[in-house]
Amino acid sequence: MIIVLKPTVTDEQVTEISNILQSRGLGVHLSRGVETTIIGAIGALDEEKAELAGQLGTLAYVDRVVPISKPYKVVARAFRPEGTTISVRGVEIGGRRVCVMAGPCTIESEEMLLSTARFVRDQGATILRGGAFKPSTSPYSFQGMGEEGLKLLSAARDETGLPVITEVMDPRDVELVCRYADILQIGTRNMTNFTLLREVGQSRTPVMLKRGWASTIEEWLQAAEYIASRGNYQIILCERGIRTFETYTRNTFDLNAVPAIKELSHLPLIADPAHGTGRWSLVSAVARGAVAAGADGIMVEVHPTPQAALKDGAQSLTFPTFSKLMEGLRPVAEAVGRDC
Amino acid sequence: MIIVLKPTVTDEQVTEISNILQSRGLGVHLSRGVETTIIGAIGALDEEKAELAGQLGTLAYVDRVVPISKPYKVVARAFRPEGTTISVRGVEIGGRRVCVMAGPCTIESEEMLLSTARFVRDQGATILRGGAFKPSTSPYSFQGMGEEGLKLLSAARDETGLPVITEVMDPRDVELVCRYADILQIGTRNMTNFTLLREVGQSRTPVMLKRGWASTIEEWLQAAEYIASRGNYQIILCERGIRTFETYTRNTFDLNAVPAIKELSHLPLIADPAHGTGRWSLVSAVARGAVAAGADGIMVEVHPTPQAALKDGAQSLTFPTFSKLMEGLRPVAEAVGRDC
Amino acid sequence: MIIVLKPTVTDEQVTEISNILQSRGLGVHLSRGVETTIIGAIGALDEEKAELAGQLGTLAYVDRVVPISKPYKVVARAFRPEGTTISVRGVEIGGRRVCVMAGPCTIESEEMLLSTARFVRDQGATILRGGAFKPSTSPYSFQGMGEEGLKLLSAARDETGLPVITEVMDPRDVELVCRYADILQIGTRNMTNFTLLREVGQSRTPVMLKRGWASTIEEWLQAAEYIASRGNYQIILCERGIRTFETYTRNTFDLNAVPAIKELSHLPLIADPAHGTGRWSLVSAVARGAVAAGADGIMVEVHPTPQAALKDGAQSLTFPTFSKLMEGLRPVAEAVGRDC
Amino acid sequence: MIIVLKPTVTDEQVTEISNILQSRGLGVHLSRGVETTIIGAIGALDEEKAELAGQLGTLAYVDRVVPISKPYKVVARAFRPEGTTISVRGVEIGGRRVCVMAGPCTIESEEMLLSTARFVRDQGATILRGGAFKPSTSPYSFQGMGEEGLKLLSAARDETGLPVITEVMDPRDVELVCRYADILQIGTRNMTNFTLLREVGQSRTPVMLKRGWASTIEEWLQAAEYIASRGNYQIILCERGIRTFETYTRNTFDLNAVPAIKELSHLPLIADPAHGTGRWSLVSAVARGAVAAGADGIMVEVHPTPQAALKDGAQSLTFPTFSKLMEGLRPVAEAVGRDC
Repeated sequence: MIIVLKPTVTDEQVTEISNILQSRGLGVHLSRGVETTIIGAIGALDEEKAELAGQLGTLAYVDRVVPISKPYKVVARAFRPEGTTISVRGVEIGGRRVCVMAGPCTIESEEMLLSTARFVRDQGATILRGGAFKPSTSPYSFQGMGEEGLKLLSAARDETGLPVITEVMDPRDVELVCRYADILQIGTRNMTNFTLLREVGQSRTPVMLKRGWASTIEEWLQAAEYIASRGNYQIILCERGIRTFETYTRNTFDLNAVPAIKELSHLPLIADPAHGTGRWSLVSAVARGAVAAGADGIMVEVHPTPQAALKDGAQSLTFPTFSKLMEGLRPVAEAVGRDC
Repeated sequence: MIIVLKPTVTDEQVTEISNILQSRGLGVHLSRGVETTIIGAIGALDEEKAELAGQLGTLAYVDRVVPISKPYKVVARAFRPEGTTISVRGVEIGGRRVCVMAGPCTIESEEMLLSTARFVRDQGATILRGGAFKPSTSPYSFQGMGEEGLKLLSAARDETGLPVITEVMDPRDVELVCRYADILQIGTRNMTNFTLLREVGQSRTPVMLKRGWASTIEEWLQAAEYIASRGNYQIILCERGIRTFETYTRNTFDLNAVPAIKELSHLPLIADPAHGTGRWSLVSAVARGAVAAGADGIMVEVHPTPQAALKDGAQSLTFPTFSKLMEGLRPVAEAVGRDC
Repeated sequence: MIIVLKPTVTDEQVTEISNILQSRGLGVHLSRGVETTIIGAIGALDEEKAELAGQLGTLAYVDRVVPISKPYKVVARAFRPEGTTISVRGVEIGGRRVCVMAGPCTIESEEMLLSTARFVRDQGATILRGGAFKPSTSPYSFQGMGEEGLKLLSAARDETGLPVITEVMDPRDVELVCRYADILQIGTRNMTNFTLLREVGQSRTPVMLKRGWASTIEEWLQAAEYIASRGNYQIILCERGIRTFETYTRNTFDLNAVPAIKELSHLPLIADPAHGTGRWSLVSAVARGAVAAGADGIMVEVHPTPQAALKDGAQSLTFPTFSKLMEGLRPVAEAVGRDC
Repeated sequence: MIIVLKPTVTDEQVTEISNILQSRGLGVHLSRGVETTIIGAIGALDEEKAELAGQLGTLAYVDRVVPISKPYKVVARAFRPEGTTISVRGVEIGGRRVCVMAGPCTIESEEMLLSTARFVRDQGATILRGGAFKPSTSPYSFQGMGEEGLKLLSAARDETGLPVITEVMDPRDVELVCRYADILQIGTRNMTNFTLLREVGQSRTPVMLKRGWASTIEEWLQAAEYIASRGNYQIILCERGIRTFETYTRNTFDLNAVPAIKELSHLPLIADPAHGTGRWSLVSAVARGAVAAGADGIMVEVHPTPQAALKDGAQSLTFPTFSKLMEGLRPVAEAVGRDC
């Protein structure tokens, strides 16, 4: 932690702050420049540093406090430099094969779920997605089929052999959802719902953590650390676009985050070009871009008749557009030394 | 709802989409311009419109769908044009008097809570704040005293006569917190935690809903509608700054939101200049600005010794700076026809 | 400048970077922590530091470089702690009196300019604004009356006694505009047009520099430093809102910037609530908020018949709404120890 | 243009606004719903519509005005559905071959420019970049070699056969730069410098227009329309990242913009992953992603010794990292049916 003092700081104040730091067991390195005096504080535990940084910031002669060490440990690349591969019923995420998660945004009926599941499997998808509990910005909109939907999902897995992923929103539902799902999904709206993060951290089901739409890469890794800190290390990250000033697209897919996460963390990374763009016509190109940049897989929404979809129709693919996406993705995966 | 069709749309496609709309019971108004064809769809219920908008967006000949009606009703200004005043143990929020909520960010001990409570009351604060359950970006940081903190808060109310507000994060804690608190606070990280919104909507304790740091004004009102839709109409909104590219301040306090909320909604609005700036040296000026623009009150963090605060020290006021804030705020409140 | 090295750095690399720094004449302070090694580099000139920071960032063992000193000098508060007051034909900007700049967005005719000028003067405005060269996002839109407009503006000054401010966009027009205007305005689109900044820096006419819509407070001060570095110290800053994800308002007026600028710089600050909101119904409230937070004045657009305005109608005030704004602003100015 | 009226609108007001529209020669389509009244105004020229939209927005009974038609014409995809290929001394931009523009950020000496030019050509670059006039946020930093740099660039072209691209910042320099350069570059800071856009629009040298760091895709296309409206149709767009809340990277490369531009415009598109990330370690991955998503080429900064670079070192590639980038890019280009 670096503490930059104001140019007007007095010797007494420098002594005062040095004493505060030393009383917390920190080593103090003082650098007095012509204009600025800087203190390097060395040795505190990270959690204490965050608190201390806030406290020091209130001293009138402190200009600012610059944190140095990363606020996450277990999910950091250094913890497992070779990278993590998560295996779900024989399907690997983070391995050589690019993982394609596909299925309807929301489970609407057995018929539509099954027909979609069979189709996407035949086209090369390896994991089936489908929402039973749906976050909805309007309290009056459809909120999902609930446990009934989970049962349909589980039946679709039995029928197609595809492991299934579905969202959990309520900490009280974690146990229920674990009974049916192979991967729990934490949605973008709940990335900072620490109650829920702790709860899924206590389960032993793999978790896919979507990035908050206005969370930095480091905050996203801290949210992953929340889950890991409870003992669940099977975490998959999912970049789904961030909120910016651009209005042509619903979100801005953050391609930079793909290699950045690979630098900073050992966790596998999935790209969600459907939410990342909000426009079905852009999904395929962004999926190719993400895989070319190093994503371990993609998640897309596929619906037999998107015009009739109950949610997120504008970003869903039809059966023919999904086939085309797979066709375009395969050579790109191979170009970066993978298959799909 | 307005549907803008692509210039290349054919007559058959116009007929197709018109039929879709009519089959949903909507009136269709067609306008063919030189370059663009536009359809006005009239009459659907709002919840259905959102779904329909997504579905129509997948038709290849649809350029875009423009929603027209507001996605909230009960919290809209039109629902109660005269505005809402919420009364908590005799203290009014949304009335003539500017409401000052003050107290420590986090409850750390009986001693510090009580001394702060007495001080802020004597300076003119009318509501005591204090955190017992704390959202923390690091899983290793202090998470609050829990029920023990609630008991201290309740004791401080008995001693000072100030009603108390505190945050609830877990839907399973709502009942517990209601036993001690006069106002429930929903934090910025939970504005889109719909599970929690529904749960506080079922209580009959007033709720202060902080704006999500990357939520639009209309999404914020929709979150309020979530609470109201469960029957709890005692909602207070709290503007606490949004996330932007600016780095000198921790957030950007959105002053525009103050008169905008007054235009769009009948709910009272509190400003949080502490989180809105993240720098104690800016808090007082922003508090004055918010009240001059029409805020019904402010919420600030006050700590006997901010250098020793366990959380958010950099934005906490000391006793002397809080006195000075109150001194500067009073004439501004009077200048806009209120008192404080 | 602080250089944070990666945990894997070797002793040889530490020696290498220390030598690079010393060969540039910098003092080196080395702090080795358990996990991180940090180097404080002391003594370089600022301009060299920016270059050096970029260069060091390419060393594979450097994690990041943290600049410490502010990238501006002449416009920094420390340069003139008592603050700057600029006097234009007897009207002070930055003094006790809140300065109100008002007039039409664009000069359309002698008649409308004069009637507006007389009206705003009678209501208390002290400076007349009006655009002769207009930035327009569409190449096919009205671009202003040019020199003809400048002549009308100058005539309006003679008639009303109000000093005049107008925008200059082309470095080749600076001399021409100086002949007619009392204050040059640099628009938000040109805040990083360094050619233009240098040119107005060479004139001796006061300059009002609008903040770039996506420029940080410190970048804005650096742009002011550009002007000052050429010898023109008569600079007024103008906060006009920044671009964020919010769509209800055209921009987000950054209230935090008002006290932040007062902390960081000695220059006077004007608020532009018209562009800061983009909605006439919010202008008055935001003007009050800005003055309560410490702004030295406001700039607003007033038009006899906004429905007929050639530009920016949606944010223009009518004569009656401008009167009402002044009426509401006066007590707020007095509440913060000023008049208006 | 759609005009949404407030629920409280009266019949007289509907008549008033209809008359205003008709007096401007617009067709009026009126739709009265249960809650909302909407007017579709049909037929105006685009430039007039923008003005009219602003004017109507000031009517107290207008809720909002929704523009329908795109604010650009000549650069729109519909103008040339087959796409545009620009040929510069035999090198095609927008053709089958992915175009690689490489070279130093800033021209520092003949020796470094020539050695870099030869190296990048041998690795497969087809265009040489190098800055002679440099935008610099600090007035005290190096501003480029000026005409001396242009001469070196021109000499490097003669020696290597690579066409050259360089930035122009001052409208008075356009003629000079055209004498030496094959492509003019407009930097991100000047995307809304309309004076400069008009000036390069009058030349007949191809122009590469970088996206403003906080400009939407449609504003970027409008800036291109500025150039085209003066008769220069040889325009190349360059996505270079936008400003967001993320701090780990300097900008957020907007991958969505790649297929979006291809949908909306016929112009060729280059990706700049160096500025788009600000970190050399991410450049190669983002370059692959951009090409996989459909970019017509990339622009990167290469320096013999980035540690000694005068500008933007942190994002410059060394000779070995550039070779590696090319090696990784080639199979991706082939995977999407191109070569490189």
